[in-house]
Amino acid sequence: MEKLPADLLALISYLKKLPGVGIRTAERFAFEFLGWPKEDLEAFSELLKNAPEKVPSCPICGCLTDRTKCSFCESGARDTEQLCIISSPRDVFAIEATRCYRGLYHVIEHLLSPLDGRHASMLRLDRIEDRIEKHPIREVIIAFDSTLEGDTTALFLKKHLIARPELKVSRLAFGLPVGSSLEYIDGGTLTRALAGRQIF
Amino acid sequence: MEKLPADLLALISYLKKLPGVGIRTAERFAFEFLGWPKEDLEAFSELLKNAPEKVPSCPICGCLTDRTKCSFCESGARDTEQLCIISSPRDVFAIEATRCYRGLYHVIEHLLSPLDGRHASMLRLDRIEDRIEKHPIREVIIAFDSTLEGDTTALFLKKHLIARPELKVSRLAFGLPVGSSLEYIDGGTLTRALAGRQIF
Repeated sequence: MEKLPADLLALISYLKKLPGVGIRTAERFAFEFLGWPKEDLEAFSELLKNAPEKVPSCPICGCLTDRTKCSFCESGARDTEQLCIISSPRDVFAIEATRCYRGLYHVIEHLLSPLDGRHASMLRLDRIEDRIEKHPIREVIIAFDSTLEGDTTALFLKKHLIARPELKVSRLAFGLPVGSSLEYIDGGTLTRALAGRQIF
Repeated sequence: MEKLPADLLALISYLKKLPGVGIRTAERFAFEFLGWPKEDLEAFSELLKNAPEKVPSCPICGCLTDRTKCSFCESGARDTEQLCIISSPRDVFAIEATRCYRGLYHVIEHLLSPLDGRHASMLRLDRIEDRIEKHPIREVIIAFDSTLEGDTTALFLKKHLIARPELKVSRLAFGLPVGSSLEYIDGGTLTRALAGRQIF
């Protein structure tokens, strides 16, 4: 037996789909799983299988929830004049942790990436429009990753939303990470930090 | 909702058990799983749950197999005078890939690590004895990782096997990795390479 058993190979091919996991790490994970106690494996695979039902997305904003409507959409305490557009329900937790934003959220599940088959139609712009109609939104804050896909999607959204002159469209600032040293900052970041300099 | 849903937290706590996976990576994996198509999640969790049955260990040598007896124990072509003791069924594949070893294998599932609750009784020395009795073994090759646990377990095994003077007990050589440059070799490796120098 110089080749791994078929079921193990199948397991490895799934694990390889996780972000940052190559063939070596996937193999390591698969062998690790084989060593887990049977009850742990069962509990874990049960959680996995049921994750989409047990941790559904809010039908309105797309944030994770464990109820029918998420706490942001339910809460009367959020500022309904601001709408923050993010690309993953995960980003909500990072933004909430800052305690600096009290507005609403809207998750578009994919950033534009035509090569990976993620086209403009998948952004569901109609749902964003719906939310802008329903709430007295005055500012849309675009909070995407600083990547090619994030930049492209932000530009696309801006072009779409510019049709509403009453709406302020903003994007997260680019610049020095807090605590960083100029010596280690890449040129792109420093250029954006210079261009976006603030009166002090 | 500033905390993750309970099911997602449970999923993350399982993922954190994988080697080299911290809280951030576990979270990233969990959110990635949430985005997988339902059928992929089901197939993957099914594979996981059934892995111990579908990819069992050979009851004799402990290597992975997909039949009742593994190909090493079944094969008549293996050299029954050599027994290679390894600490994980995974290591078989690395050793077989060298095409330099044709003997038998024996997997001890744990290296000694008293702090982690892995004691000498878990090495199942009786099973190693059984195999030495059953085959005309003349050499036991210890092929453990070069770690504190690997060294400890190798010493322990050696002390145990020394009671059989007819048996040669060897361990994988330590020295320079092939293709390495002396400049980057750590002191410990260089010391072992010097001590184990060969007539040239």
